[in-house]
Amino acid sequence: MNLALELASATRGQTAPNPMVGSVIVNNGEIVGMGAHLIAGEPHAEVHALRMAGEKAKGAAIYVTLEPCSHYGRTPPCAEAIIAAGIKRVIIASQDPNPHVSGKGIKLMKEAGIEVTIGVLAQKADKLNEVFFYNMAKQLPFVTMKQAITLDGKIATKTGHSKWITGELARQDVHIDRSVHDAILVGSNTILRDNPRLTNRSQTSKRQLIRLILDTNLNIPKDSNVLTDGAAPTWIITGSEITDEKAAQYANEYIKVIRMSTPEIQIEETLKVLFENGITSIYVEGGQQVNASFLKSGFVNRIVTYLSPKIIGGSEAPNMIGDLQIMTMSEAFQLSFESIEQLGDDIKITSKLK
Amino acid sequence: MNLALELASATRGQTAPNPMVGSVIVNNGEIVGMGAHLIAGEPHAEVHALRMAGEKAKGAAIYVTLEPCSHYGRTPPCAEAIIAAGIKRVIIASQDPNPHVSGKGIKLMKEAGIEVTIGVLAQKADKLNEVFFYNMAKQLPFVTMKQAITLDGKIATKTGHSKWITGELARQDVHIDRSVHDAILVGSNTILRDNPRLTNRSQTSKRQLIRLILDTNLNIPKDSNVLTDGAAPTWIITGSEITDEKAAQYANEYIKVIRMSTPEIQIEETLKVLFENGITSIYVEGGQQVNASFLKSGFVNRIVTYLSPKIIGGSEAPNMIGDLQIMTMSEAFQLSFESIEQLGDDIKITSKLK
Repeated sequence: MNLALELASATRGQTAPNPMVGSVIVNNGEIVGMGAHLIAGEPHAEVHALRMAGEKAKGAAIYVTLEPCSHYGRTPPCAEAIIAAGIKRVIIASQDPNPHVSGKGIKLMKEAGIEVTIGVLAQKADKLNEVFFYNMAKQLPFVTMKQAITLDGKIATKTGHSKWITGELARQDVHIDRSVHDAILVGSNTILRDNPRLTNRSQTSKRQLIRLILDTNLNIPKDSNVLTDGAAPTWIITGSEITDEKAAQYANEYIKVIRMSTPEIQIEETLKVLFENGITSIYVEGGQQVNASFLKSGFVNRIVTYLSPKIIGGSEAPNMIGDLQIMTMSEAFQLSFESIEQLGDDIKITSKLK
Repeated sequence: MNLALELASATRGQTAPNPMVGSVIVNNGEIVGMGAHLIAGEPHAEVHALRMAGEKAKGAAIYVTLEPCSHYGRTPPCAEAIIAAGIKRVIIASQDPNPHVSGKGIKLMKEAGIEVTIGVLAQKADKLNEVFFYNMAKQLPFVTMKQAITLDGKIATKTGHSKWITGELARQDVHIDRSVHDAILVGSNTILRDNPRLTNRSQTSKRQLIRLILDTNLNIPKDSNVLTDGAAPTWIITGSEITDEKAAQYANEYIKVIRMSTPEIQIEETLKVLFENGITSIYVEGGQQVNASFLKSGFVNRIVTYLSPKIIGGSEAPNMIGDLQIMTMSEAFQLSFESIEQLGDDIKITSKLK
């Protein structure tokens, strides 16, 4: 199962909206098949493994990190393929959270006389697909909020200078983290101030993310990099008071203007609309205001903080998060530090909201 | 030598102004003597070890973490005691940085026909006595600056509420760190706002630190805890414009008022005066202003930051450090993270200034 999980995790960032799945077939103590689901629309992990095993699947055991599917989607059901191949034993890590699948594949296989074991390394497998599981449970995209700050919590000097808070290794790591999300999100202030490109420039993946800009009043300059470079699609989220005429000035083949139902952008509605438009995960690289809005909305799944060994000082230098109206310590947002990692001179801290 | 270093480090916080020193005597592969310097004025580590070894010191090897002394101070010179005991071989970790001692003890012992090895585990031994070595080199106290902050660098909410930023384990650790310093330092704002006791309430040591208050205009209330509880001496550092009359209103048997030579307190002069008054190490627990003054002075040896998994947000909530007039990232104070440790839900980060 560990090998199956390895196979699955190698596909991180390329399977959305599908989960990562790995599968290994063992016959008489020998591995006879291995597979992973590579990209939505292509065969599932079990099908690749069964193909590799061929005749040797007969009487064998199959390890699969997620319950085999039982429905006809873009590919035929894996549970039936497993039965047809003469597999004797199925070992599953996570059960499928998708209501169309959960338990049905297991039932099918048991009825066919196959021995089914569930829950082997389930914690590891659940963690691997936490984005997919969250998507299924909430019908919302998974949100990662990222900041690069100094030891004293600053994202820039009081003049707005921020190149660079963190070192080379941390900045490379940001590109890797970006690349496993469907979209990257910033506020209009970031566009106005930094005019960033917001592309994935990691070494490992060339996949481009959708660029999302929260711009209530549709103020960003039409010559911003994200609107002119054509490097990736850009979707601008605006309040309800933007006219069709104004929106039409921005929209084109790769720029979409998405109006919310209220004059001020509501994070929850935004996330719902984005999920309906196929966005399963968002990497939020906002400034103070966007970070504060997301935190207050309650829809932040993970906070990634790159902490650099620098001190800027002062209350005029911008902070990581805007005002949250916190008066006493008991009202402060409570997180838990999930992991701490050294990246060159910097530290990467991954937190979850409690 | 590792055992000798263990013996030495067990005395942390009790030997000032002397260094921590441990010694082990080995004869024929057997340990025949062990010792550590326990408290200033009492015998040195080598003397304790030689006493334990008695006749078995003859022909033996002595391991000592710091070069044996050669001068008559409060105790007779150890180099002579080693010669008299018939030791054949001396193994030393650190050479003594004290100009009265350095090299002289080694010379004496070599002249007496003893084989002397220097530098064994020197890095570890130098680190153990970094405070003492700094004292000797600069004739200034070693300064540790401590803060407890949220992930976003806040030391309190905008109403000033700060109980508690960190959890129980981190707060206990502060008392342990306090207890190995000679003095604890805060600014008058901390006294006015929190009226703290600033006592060592660690489980491991009952030693009380001198309480230092930076109070330029001698404003702190006469009924502050640090002035009335008699739990430890309190020294108030003021600017030059405080009159004798005003100072006399504060001073008594355990409260000292120390006037600087300028109207504004200069950190460098303050440290010089404190060192002359026997303070070898200071634990700075200031707020924004004291932290900023110390950082700007350049006289901070170590920064200890307790980072809690909380977010307060906003620019009105006080920051870890006051204004430092930093305009671009290249002007930011550069640190290096020396160690990172998990303490319950919090993280303890120890940094040094580059």
